[in-house]
Amino acid sequence: MAAVDMDQLLAQIVAEIEPQIGTGSVADYIPALAAVDPAQFGIAVALPNGECYGAGDWTKPFSLQSISKLFTLALALSGDDESIWWRVGREPSGNAFNSLVQLEYENGVPRNPFINAGALVVTDHLAGVFGDATKAVLDFLRTESGNAEIDCDEEVAASEEAHGDRNLAMAHFLASYGNIHGDVRSIADQYVRQCAIAINCRDLALAGLFLARHGLRRDDTRMLSPSNTKRINAVLLTCGMYDAAGEFAYRVGLPGKSGVGGGILAVVPGRCTIAVWGPGLDRRGNSVAGVAALDRFTELTGWSVF
Amino acid sequence: MAAVDMDQLLAQIVAEIEPQIGTGSVADYIPALAAVDPAQFGIAVALPNGECYGAGDWTKPFSLQSISKLFTLALALSGDDESIWWRVGREPSGNAFNSLVQLEYENGVPRNPFINAGALVVTDHLAGVFGDATKAVLDFLRTESGNAEIDCDEEVAASEEAHGDRNLAMAHFLASYGNIHGDVRSIADQYVRQCAIAINCRDLALAGLFLARHGLRRDDTRMLSPSNTKRINAVLLTCGMYDAAGEFAYRVGLPGKSGVGGGILAVVPGRCTIAVWGPGLDRRGNSVAGVAALDRFTELTGWSVF
Amino acid sequence: MAAVDMDQLLAQIVAEIEPQIGTGSVADYIPALAAVDPAQFGIAVALPNGECYGAGDWTKPFSLQSISKLFTLALALSGDDESIWWRVGREPSGNAFNSLVQLEYENGVPRNPFINAGALVVTDHLAGVFGDATKAVLDFLRTESGNAEIDCDEEVAASEEAHGDRNLAMAHFLASYGNIHGDVRSIADQYVRQCAIAINCRDLALAGLFLARHGLRRDDTRMLSPSNTKRINAVLLTCGMYDAAGEFAYRVGLPGKSGVGGGILAVVPGRCTIAVWGPGLDRRGNSVAGVAALDRFTELTGWSVF
Amino acid sequence: MAAVDMDQLLAQIVAEIEPQIGTGSVADYIPALAAVDPAQFGIAVALPNGECYGAGDWTKPFSLQSISKLFTLALALSGDDESIWWRVGREPSGNAFNSLVQLEYENGVPRNPFINAGALVVTDHLAGVFGDATKAVLDFLRTESGNAEIDCDEEVAASEEAHGDRNLAMAHFLASYGNIHGDVRSIADQYVRQCAIAINCRDLALAGLFLARHGLRRDDTRMLSPSNTKRINAVLLTCGMYDAAGEFAYRVGLPGKSGVGGGILAVVPGRCTIAVWGPGLDRRGNSVAGVAALDRFTELTGWSVF
Repeated sequence: MAAVDMDQLLAQIVAEIEPQIGTGSVADYIPALAAVDPAQFGIAVALPNGECYGAGDWTKPFSLQSISKLFTLALALSGDDESIWWRVGREPSGNAFNSLVQLEYENGVPRNPFINAGALVVTDHLAGVFGDATKAVLDFLRTESGNAEIDCDEEVAASEEAHGDRNLAMAHFLASYGNIHGDVRSIADQYVRQCAIAINCRDLALAGLFLARHGLRRDDTRMLSPSNTKRINAVLLTCGMYDAAGEFAYRVGLPGKSGVGGGILAVVPGRCTIAVWGPGLDRRGNSVAGVAALDRFTELTGWSVF
Repeated sequence: MAAVDMDQLLAQIVAEIEPQIGTGSVADYIPALAAVDPAQFGIAVALPNGECYGAGDWTKPFSLQSISKLFTLALALSGDDESIWWRVGREPSGNAFNSLVQLEYENGVPRNPFINAGALVVTDHLAGVFGDATKAVLDFLRTESGNAEIDCDEEVAASEEAHGDRNLAMAHFLASYGNIHGDVRSIADQYVRQCAIAINCRDLALAGLFLARHGLRRDDTRMLSPSNTKRINAVLLTCGMYDAAGEFAYRVGLPGKSGVGGGILAVVPGRCTIAVWGPGLDRRGNSVAGVAALDRFTELTGWSVF
Repeated sequence: MAAVDMDQLLAQIVAEIEPQIGTGSVADYIPALAAVDPAQFGIAVALPNGECYGAGDWTKPFSLQSISKLFTLALALSGDDESIWWRVGREPSGNAFNSLVQLEYENGVPRNPFINAGALVVTDHLAGVFGDATKAVLDFLRTESGNAEIDCDEEVAASEEAHGDRNLAMAHFLASYGNIHGDVRSIADQYVRQCAIAINCRDLALAGLFLARHGLRRDDTRMLSPSNTKRINAVLLTCGMYDAAGEFAYRVGLPGKSGVGGGILAVVPGRCTIAVWGPGLDRRGNSVAGVAALDRFTELTGWSVF
Repeated sequence: MAAVDMDQLLAQIVAEIEPQIGTGSVADYIPALAAVDPAQFGIAVALPNGECYGAGDWTKPFSLQSISKLFTLALALSGDDESIWWRVGREPSGNAFNSLVQLEYENGVPRNPFINAGALVVTDHLAGVFGDATKAVLDFLRTESGNAEIDCDEEVAASEEAHGDRNLAMAHFLASYGNIHGDVRSIADQYVRQCAIAINCRDLALAGLFLARHGLRRDDTRMLSPSNTKRINAVLLTCGMYDAAGEFAYRVGLPGKSGVGGGILAVVPGRCTIAVWGPGLDRRGNSVAGVAALDRFTELTGWSVF
């Protein structure tokens, strides 16, 4: 696809997936998310040169949720420090994203950094390196997007903490295996707060550009080696979509990370990042309209890793 | 990598991984495989134009084993008949390749076509379409490689059948859920026989070329649409390496399928297929020298899907 | 309870549980059982001296099903040969009665002799000792009850065999661990046929009397030592009622074994055996009316092991 | 056994099991318990009339640990309030005593009150009724034994709390299903403290007498109906010995509850209670010498429930 008219392409995609906007179910276990109007949709594409295109509700903030796990992993690996892999695996989990079962069978080493248990371990690692993991994520998102206003949505954070027993169970369980080093409640709190960050499609696509730029940040300083950047993309492809990683690879064929806020960040290495947002989720927790839009995007551009 | 001198590249790779040749353990649950000399290694690369390069023991036959699952899946999807997906999923399994546990939790629908349960279902589908699944696979391998001598190793087949209780258990279990339609013993027999096919790296690389040629066979007839070809590559990447799919994607970054005979077939879409063989296996059942060689290959060529 | 008028007691029990007769669901996975009229109920009590009392449909034959597992275990232990315990455990299973999952975790040693996997192993042991396990069970039932007409219901046996993939899966799975020594199909067949034995409450209560007589058979020859008889009663109490052993111990407080044909055989050591039959099952596979009748029996007599 | 000379019997038992005293492993996950000298053994028998006999180290205190679960259950059921059964099951668990796995499959309802998860729920119930569950247990033990000195061992309590992540994980996990109503940390704390109670064989045998006296306390006031007393004995028999309940029922044939402090309390309904203590544990967490002594006791007296 020699020259893509991005504005036209995104408008076409929004039009084509219109019937799916508003379908699916809004995440209901976090009260503040349950109140979001499902009939919204946004898409943004960022190019390696920093240009950004968008359509629909692409400048409206939504809850980052598990997409934060991609940024915490990247920060943990920054400077090509690979020590995090001693504490977390990189195999698909084959189970629901918050299962304690697998953790027990594997003696406290989470299968990958994108299940909740794995993200708690990565957060603990970041807390050790940066002091405050949430602040480290916020700093990164603000710098890369150029939007200093990005912040936690305190209402969402409070809403999650009020229902945080499952996270605390997981964190104490990890600690019982020696795989949380910091204070359990503080780590669980930082984990919840980074999930509660509000961001829009434009800023999310820009913040993820280092994955399409072989590890270079916006200011051309190197965050990760090309080799480690490829590797994060590999982990995204095999583990990034909860228990639907295989399905997403099959249909869309791109590395991506989803969140129950309805967002997905996908990467075409060397070409672009795509951020989509639609609050209605399928039964595996991925945005119905978001997956459909990415499916159309790869179909229309022919851009796929395979 | 504008122009690769393949002969030189493959010689360099064989030299570099020499210390790993002979390490690992030969599969010991199939007596005929346990007798194979581990100190062997071969590699072959086939280009879309049909050229084929090789080094080491690349013309020495080895046991195809689970790599056959890739060909049975492709044959099941040929003509873009997607009905097989009603009977088998495409999610990574997160468990050992021959586990009955997951099958029970998922009511008789195997997680993907590359675990043994899934391959039995695909074999049953092929038996319904072609009459004899093993013959269908043999015909395909012979035609694509141009080697009419490819055949089952009867000693290996007999060796596996003598220890076939686990396969029969799985097949009867699938039948109890209505997910085997043919005669259970015959299906299990066809499954064992296709695993027992002996092939060398050269022929294997050539036989897999349709995956690098967007679905076109050697004679330029279409086997699969470009879209379904991509999709098989996606399933290979997420599920092709037993319980080490994530690790292989992370280190090598290519779609691939391994077998306990020590072979691996990997695909660089649009560029080439690579077949490697080394009998020594790691604890997940993948060739130690084979994975190392593919790791070097992607490092030296820069060819990766990410 | 100094002197019990058994006839009056049993009549009272039948009257009291009348509302529950016909409730529950008839086993539907065996077609020949699915056709049984649920509105039937029988109860029989056998005393150590051989006297037998009954009420309701107590002379009407029903399908023995899993109650046969009690007799195969007793026969395996006869002469106080305890070698069977090398091949099967005696812990409650905590899972459905036909689960392959637990078997996999425990490397082919079934948790206890009353889950299907355990019963297959016991059947295999009997086949080794007696040649034909079904015949051994039939001989025992006929001798102890004095009814030479007891036999397999060929329609039920054929009905089960037609749906026998699960049993064959289990038997091959056990064989893959070396825990079936005979021919897999023959052992599975003997297992199915002993389950298909038709018997009535009277004959069942008499056949079980050795458990209330400290191991003595009808003719006062010793089958088991008092110690091994106690032990079978202990295994019955902890494992005899599928996944409801705890509930049955709690409510009824007697060793017992149930079958999906709707029968239950319970034991009051030193005092009597009680056989009940009602085809309607609860969700764990135990007779609704049968459990209710045994609950009333222990309440009215005060006979309980606790 | 018309008249037992208890003193002589207990002396004989201590002599016979002497070779097993000091064998097994002391619980090592609680530092304060790991320091206990394994070469100790005590046994006490209490009769319904309040007489108490003992031998060996029967007046030396040890850590109550999981035996406390028996008293919390009895207190929860006192006055025949059966509401606790809405929140906890009574089936054997078939898994290690502190497994989160089963809890997840059963949606937050523990299988029985004697696994850790179940005991946390019972403790939460007691905290709601009595304010402080530990105090309620202490009051009961002191009154029934007549020993007002019984108390928590603060060193053991501190030792457990320092390693309490697993308990907190479990408690938060239960809370995430709504099955802990009080403050999670306070409930976990009360749970740990009741396990840390120090008691000797004499006092333990006396405190458990209500189970042999059909529900009557020392002062002849009724704690439980005869029927509910039987039922606790039934739960003890099916679930009281961790994952060795079946084995203990088979060998010993009595309701009993063990703790990793090396104590076991067993009941012969209508006849006596027996408390044994030996710190060396088998791989399932039960006292090696204690089980052996109870085995001899039932063999020599002929007292068994079967």
